[in-house]
Amino acid sequence: MIKANNPALRSWIDIPKGSDFPIQNLPFGIFKTNYLSAVAGVAIGNYVLDLVYLHEHGFFDGLGLPSGIFNQKYLNDFISLGKKKTREVRERISELLQHDNDELKLNVGARELALIPMDEVQMLLPVRISNYTDFYSSEEHAFNVGSMFRDPKNALLPNWKHLPVGYHGRASSIVVSGTPIHRPKGQIKPADSELPVFCPSQKLDFELELAFITCQETKLGTPISASDAENHIFGFVLFNDWSARDIQQWEYVPLGPFLGKNFGSTISPWIVTMDALEPFRVQGPEQFPHVLPYLVTEGAKNFDVTLEVLIQPDKSDETTLSRSNFKYLYWNVNQQLAHHTVNGCNVQVGDLYASGTISGPSPGSFGSLLELSWNGQRPLHLADGSERRFIEDGDTIILRGHAERDHVRIGFGECKGKILPAL
Amino acid sequence: MIKANNPALRSWIDIPKGSDFPIQNLPFGIFKTNYLSAVAGVAIGNYVLDLVYLHEHGFFDGLGLPSGIFNQKYLNDFISLGKKKTREVRERISELLQHDNDELKLNVGARELALIPMDEVQMLLPVRISNYTDFYSSEEHAFNVGSMFRDPKNALLPNWKHLPVGYHGRASSIVVSGTPIHRPKGQIKPADSELPVFCPSQKLDFELELAFITCQETKLGTPISASDAENHIFGFVLFNDWSARDIQQWEYVPLGPFLGKNFGSTISPWIVTMDALEPFRVQGPEQFPHVLPYLVTEGAKNFDVTLEVLIQPDKSDETTLSRSNFKYLYWNVNQQLAHHTVNGCNVQVGDLYASGTISGPSPGSFGSLLELSWNGQRPLHLADGSERRFIEDGDTIILRGHAERDHVRIGFGECKGKILPAL
Repeated sequence: MIKANNPALRSWIDIPKGSDFPIQNLPFGIFKTNYLSAVAGVAIGNYVLDLVYLHEHGFFDGLGLPSGIFNQKYLNDFISLGKKKTREVRERISELLQHDNDELKLNVGARELALIPMDEVQMLLPVRISNYTDFYSSEEHAFNVGSMFRDPKNALLPNWKHLPVGYHGRASSIVVSGTPIHRPKGQIKPADSELPVFCPSQKLDFELELAFITCQETKLGTPISASDAENHIFGFVLFNDWSARDIQQWEYVPLGPFLGKNFGSTISPWIVTMDALEPFRVQGPEQFPHVLPYLVTEGAKNFDVTLEVLIQPDKSDETTLSRSNFKYLYWNVNQQLAHHTVNGCNVQVGDLYASGTISGPSPGSFGSLLELSWNGQRPLHLADGSERRFIEDGDTIILRGHAERDHVRIGFGECKGKILPAL
Repeated sequence: MIKANNPALRSWIDIPKGSDFPIQNLPFGIFKTNYLSAVAGVAIGNYVLDLVYLHEHGFFDGLGLPSGIFNQKYLNDFISLGKKKTREVRERISELLQHDNDELKLNVGARELALIPMDEVQMLLPVRISNYTDFYSSEEHAFNVGSMFRDPKNALLPNWKHLPVGYHGRASSIVVSGTPIHRPKGQIKPADSELPVFCPSQKLDFELELAFITCQETKLGTPISASDAENHIFGFVLFNDWSARDIQQWEYVPLGPFLGKNFGSTISPWIVTMDALEPFRVQGPEQFPHVLPYLVTEGAKNFDVTLEVLIQPDKSDETTLSRSNFKYLYWNVNQQLAHHTVNGCNVQVGDLYASGTISGPSPGSFGSLLELSWNGQRPLHLADGSERRFIEDGDTIILRGHAERDHVRIGFGECKGKILPAL
């Protein structure tokens, strides 16, 4: 049992009802303010706890942390200390924030400096993303796409139930929530034209995903076993894999998605630790046919995380487009990492592995506009009276996610991005 | 005219006949020795010139180079100084090595310390590879693969002549020449089996490629035009995109190659600058149908670089498997980079962009065993009397490349790797 997860814990910091960041969460991120540049922090209620301050003032003494470990542009060095050490740090932060702990609570000077109101910080990318892979692990999503573009009777390709299909994505264009993205231009082949044309994408979409971040470097040639995989995972972020369906459709044979994806992907800024998600483990879907031995996992390896997607047209109200759940994924993260490395592929600290679009069984739980509007055939009606088949200029897409149990809500904050007109 | 390229230049260093590294080349790399760790160097004849020594002893004074710029694990910071500055450095090195320049030549102490025999150094990865993309730009290769797996009458897919097809690869598993690679294991679907099996790849292959390395960071949303692309390219290396054809064939639909590729790729250690290749520009193949305006390039954008692939079975002689040429590529590097970024995808310093397998028109110029043995149907006969359909354990694959004109030979050194048995 991880002490910091105890649902009975209370903090001396006032946590607003419905907050994503109670004392049981304590996600890590990198922030800056008007006077601080690139500092590691932890979210608690409406505050960010400045870990540089705490470390420099002795609050982590005895943990043997390197000096300057929190005073960096990215969390890579911190998470590379390993899960045992980062767990100790999370436990210590939990201790400092508990209602009956006076160390920080009664040290008014330190409190004022170490706790920064969330609206005074700007969140940055939490890690330097070394490598990025995108899986395709939702059966419902693969089925929907296969039904739309091939045949509902053979929607899943023959390999799909034998291995977690994935591909390499572009790490350079992953940005943090809040970064606007320009509508991409590219080659599109209209159905009625013999030649492709060059123009802004007309079928711009989001993909609702979760991604995990690895914290340990492995050696080329050395696989990670499915039973050991979780020791390599520091935590999770929300992930929006923006997709230009029309660019993708023309380019993707035979080598996969490329410019239809690499113009930008957005992650939420707070890494929710795998530790914080421990209480929310659930069994994944039954897997049949049986998987090969290297993909066998035992016990509850999925996580019950409610996900939602909202759209907010420019200067207008939000509309919820979809409600899904991380637990629907057919392939779990252990299987993904075991498969990825079974050929000897090495993992680096700060690698990001995204789930693929997470769609649930009902139309209201589909994780992309491609599925929600069935490739534009069924327009969606928004709160402001407008319709959407795909994303329009000025639209903001917001992903949210949280797990909840015993009145404890472990939230991810927001992963949001606004689409600006093509340049 | 770049002075350092003058074919009349001679060095006071003895350059063996047929050396890849005359004074007109001066490629950059990172090396270590028994007493030096990770130092930037330049190849000249059978020596490596220690740039840290030269910089610390004032030989680059007046160039305004940051201190410590050569004393790093990778060349990223150096190449990010921009092509104007790195060209000045190459010109200055050329000057120091010219037969009538006495600065280093007559300074016996400095000479002894700055020039290290090549057999006393170990070459390391020259750059920290930020992102890796693999193109598919040889028409002959795409045609051969399409003929084998689809239909010779429709070998090229409809998009192939309209855009340089490419996909994202795995940066973490790119290693420097000389690093052995274990045969990957993975899922394979035998033709006569209903279910996949897990075993070592039976169809292990090489791919003969060249790759360019970028030296400038661009902003997300800002394309690089085809006419500006060369300003972003520092130089080239040989690239072996090891491929497990049987793993690839089962996994690659619909999202492209993954575990069939990411168990390892090998690059040559010396980055031959784009400047050094200037005299070897040639026109590429005529492009028809006409390309879209953003892909139009003017002038000679291909390079006449002779390439060869050799195989050396364990404790046996080399056999040449293929002779090809970089000039055969249908899509040039300017078009590749312009296409890659036309949607706003950003480029980082140290990105590696590989050409895809470079096959020529004749069977002896094919750039992979898949093509040379026509998917195993036509075994190749080696010098030691053995046969090869695909790579066997203990085989070493060696790529070489050079450009030659006016008795000046600009070589790439070797890109070699030995295949060890599966772990």
